[in-house]
Amino acid sequence: MSQPQANIGVVGMAVMGSNLARNLASREGNTVAIYNRSVDKARAVADAHPEAGFLVAESVQEFADSLARPRTAIIMVKAGGPTDAVINQLVEVFEPGDIIVDGGNALFTDTIRREQAVRDTGIHFVGAGISGGEEGALNGPSIMPGGTAESYATLGPILATIAAVAEGEPCVTHVGTDGAGHFVKMIHNGIEYADMQLIAEAYDLLRNVAGLSAPEIADVFDEWNRGELESYLIEITAEVLRQVDAATGQPLVDVILDQAGSKGTGVWTVQTALGLGVPVSGIAEAVFARALSSKPAQRAASRNLPGGGTVTVDNRDAFIEDVRQALYASKIVAYSQGFDAIIEGAKEYGWDIKKGDIAKIWRGGCIIRAQFLNRITEAYAQDPNLVVLLAAPYFRDAVTQAQDAWRRTIITAVQAGLPTPAFSSSLAYYDGLRAERLPASLVQGQRDFFGAHTYKRTDRDGTFHTLWSGDRSEISAEDTH
Amino acid sequence: MSQPQANIGVVGMAVMGSNLARNLASREGNTVAIYNRSVDKARAVADAHPEAGFLVAESVQEFADSLARPRTAIIMVKAGGPTDAVINQLVEVFEPGDIIVDGGNALFTDTIRREQAVRDTGIHFVGAGISGGEEGALNGPSIMPGGTAESYATLGPILATIAAVAEGEPCVTHVGTDGAGHFVKMIHNGIEYADMQLIAEAYDLLRNVAGLSAPEIADVFDEWNRGELESYLIEITAEVLRQVDAATGQPLVDVILDQAGSKGTGVWTVQTALGLGVPVSGIAEAVFARALSSKPAQRAASRNLPGGGTVTVDNRDAFIEDVRQALYASKIVAYSQGFDAIIEGAKEYGWDIKKGDIAKIWRGGCIIRAQFLNRITEAYAQDPNLVVLLAAPYFRDAVTQAQDAWRRTIITAVQAGLPTPAFSSSLAYYDGLRAERLPASLVQGQRDFFGAHTYKRTDRDGTFHTLWSGDRSEISAEDTH
Repeated sequence: MSQPQANIGVVGMAVMGSNLARNLASREGNTVAIYNRSVDKARAVADAHPEAGFLVAESVQEFADSLARPRTAIIMVKAGGPTDAVINQLVEVFEPGDIIVDGGNALFTDTIRREQAVRDTGIHFVGAGISGGEEGALNGPSIMPGGTAESYATLGPILATIAAVAEGEPCVTHVGTDGAGHFVKMIHNGIEYADMQLIAEAYDLLRNVAGLSAPEIADVFDEWNRGELESYLIEITAEVLRQVDAATGQPLVDVILDQAGSKGTGVWTVQTALGLGVPVSGIAEAVFARALSSKPAQRAASRNLPGGGTVTVDNRDAFIEDVRQALYASKIVAYSQGFDAIIEGAKEYGWDIKKGDIAKIWRGGCIIRAQFLNRITEAYAQDPNLVVLLAAPYFRDAVTQAQDAWRRTIITAVQAGLPTPAFSSSLAYYDGLRAERLPASLVQGQRDFFGAHTYKRTDRDGTFHTLWSGDRSEISAEDTH
Repeated sequence: MSQPQANIGVVGMAVMGSNLARNLASREGNTVAIYNRSVDKARAVADAHPEAGFLVAESVQEFADSLARPRTAIIMVKAGGPTDAVINQLVEVFEPGDIIVDGGNALFTDTIRREQAVRDTGIHFVGAGISGGEEGALNGPSIMPGGTAESYATLGPILATIAAVAEGEPCVTHVGTDGAGHFVKMIHNGIEYADMQLIAEAYDLLRNVAGLSAPEIADVFDEWNRGELESYLIEITAEVLRQVDAATGQPLVDVILDQAGSKGTGVWTVQTALGLGVPVSGIAEAVFARALSSKPAQRAASRNLPGGGTVTVDNRDAFIEDVRQALYASKIVAYSQGFDAIIEGAKEYGWDIKKGDIAKIWRGGCIIRAQFLNRITEAYAQDPNLVVLLAAPYFRDAVTQAQDAWRRTIITAVQAGLPTPAFSSSLAYYDGLRAERLPASLVQGQRDFFGAHTYKRTDRDGTFHTLWSGDRSEISAEDTH
């Protein structure tokens, strides 16, 4: 093993790491070195997959020696302390120009911190979001690397060999410097939360208002998957709804406990967007809906609160089409909000993120992959400085066509007492965005009254305050203190 | 000044600090030492208010010398670096048993950090939320001190002399240890955001659906202020709506730019609640509504998106009453969510917070002061372990009575194309909380499909996974890896 033979190394042989290593090894031109804290595990992976031709390193030094320069290694270990530990080990044995990639689900601010810490050594540190789960890691994920452009010149072609392919293009692009890749991966996950919640609300309406059975709704989703909603999530929803529980003979969805879990990236997305001043209400409502579902004691205590009346659907097909349009319009809002967060994040952290390229690399490998993303790429191609995705011609037309159905669907849900937090908040956002005047003027008046927070006027520049406790005349805010 | 004569000191002579110092000085038994980085400012305050009998300290040492033991000083300077600088100065000259109070709007995690840093010196560090703005500081704020019980024995009686008084009781209580006071103050502000947004949505509906003028709506709010909605915010809303702009002769609310600002505590509340897994959707939607209003370029680009139809109101009084009920029900949800965040924060940080006492000290001095808070105190008196406020008998009855009107109001808003994000999200939360089954089961099925995240079953214990890419049989999750 003294000859540097591998063009890429992977550290961490848990499922994600070994799958990614196998994916790399299966592609023309790659020789893969693997390293794991417990060498036995690395040996076991190599033994189980002899076709991969893995070079098993017994130590970090041997791992470094086995890599051709610039050494390029992808870390696939637990986020947090374990990731920091491996970075520190690699920094000891790597040299200037070498590349350390964190392929885990790190918080982007940690990635920024790590990139800064490593930078002085001359080693490149790259945070890369990798989406698609275990299956994607093995067969083709969507990959969102940050870090320097220089490191991408080496890393990009390697990642392109393993990435998913969508319409002939590998789903990988240089997102931006330092933490940009992990940031965009985080937003991807936030959008995924919203998308899943919207589908769940659509299902709930079809089940409890239209009275469709789970397999009937599976058929509806299959049909939707042939239209503008075509996406992986719609596709697998049909699969889940068609699944019958062997033990009970019931639809599996009726046997699964209705308490949704989460891994935290949805929370990160909303917390980050709040800090950036971006209203990601669709994502937030999705995160809150999961949290609410997982409070069994509160739900039990509230179960006998009264609900809406019985709602009957006269025309089932028309109702199904209304729900489809509501889902599509709400989905457009969720993506518009997500891209808004990307725009503001890029501004805040100094990243040059090409929004159209992000939509492109999400077309394959990742959970939110969909035809729909081509429309986003086109919108940013037409106008790279688009201030809000919702106002792009294609999406404007789509919501214009959908909005009556969207309103009818929400009204039905409100009447029936079914919770549609993501449908409702998306419409409220839409109506807020397009409002000529918002009651925010009253909020500003209240804030000026109780806190002298001042206000601006519609008819002239400046900042003003009314002397509410005095003679109620208006003064220029420069005079307030 | 070598004789320690003052029982309390105030550092920082900007408006909040000088008002608090004047408030203290005006109460029987208090002698107040004041200190400011620029001594001239402290002297100017003392000169302007000779009746206060301030002891002006020329240095931090002189300030310490002027205070009787245990020395007790309230810092009223800018949050962040300036606060840390003053704490460090005081720690140098104070002694074990003395008390340093931060009365600013610190993030509670900073307060926890500061308390830990100071603890080893034997000096008590107390983070105290002070609500009521400049006017409250002068005439009686609501005060939420954290820190040790020992420090409260000295500090509590002093704060009780200056706090607002509600139904004979001073609006101050020992909230809990270290950062508990600033935590509860943060939640107070979050609830305030929701309350203001709900009022703004009610106003918007009365204005644009019922067609009432601003002064007519002022009359409506005056009337509401005599019922169960009685509160400071309802009262001042009437005042703001009645205000006529001298320059234009228009209602001031029509002249104020409809872009709402914020100081960040709403963002903190939602970020914190997200971390605690608490669905504070009403507060979140209020924060997002302000953010959305302050995006003029996005709003301009979206202005010609189509809206709802024209909605006419047959019975104006009935509609006004519907809106009132919608506001009341949504407000109950917002407070229920806020107290949920207090419960989870207390669990997370090990605070023994008496929810009923918090509602009590909010009855006076602070922005959300209201009769309504007595109902919360009563609910927690009846059941200190209440799992969710909404399910307490009084609130259960209130929403039961209001829910039909609440639904009608939201339906009208959706039809009319008026944004009611906080009304809508509150109802969605309500319908989610009371749901027998939530579509969260589908979300769990999706998560198991694409990420092997496993699920639980309704009919037996354990954690399960379906082999979606295999024969689709179900296995116990212990077997998945």
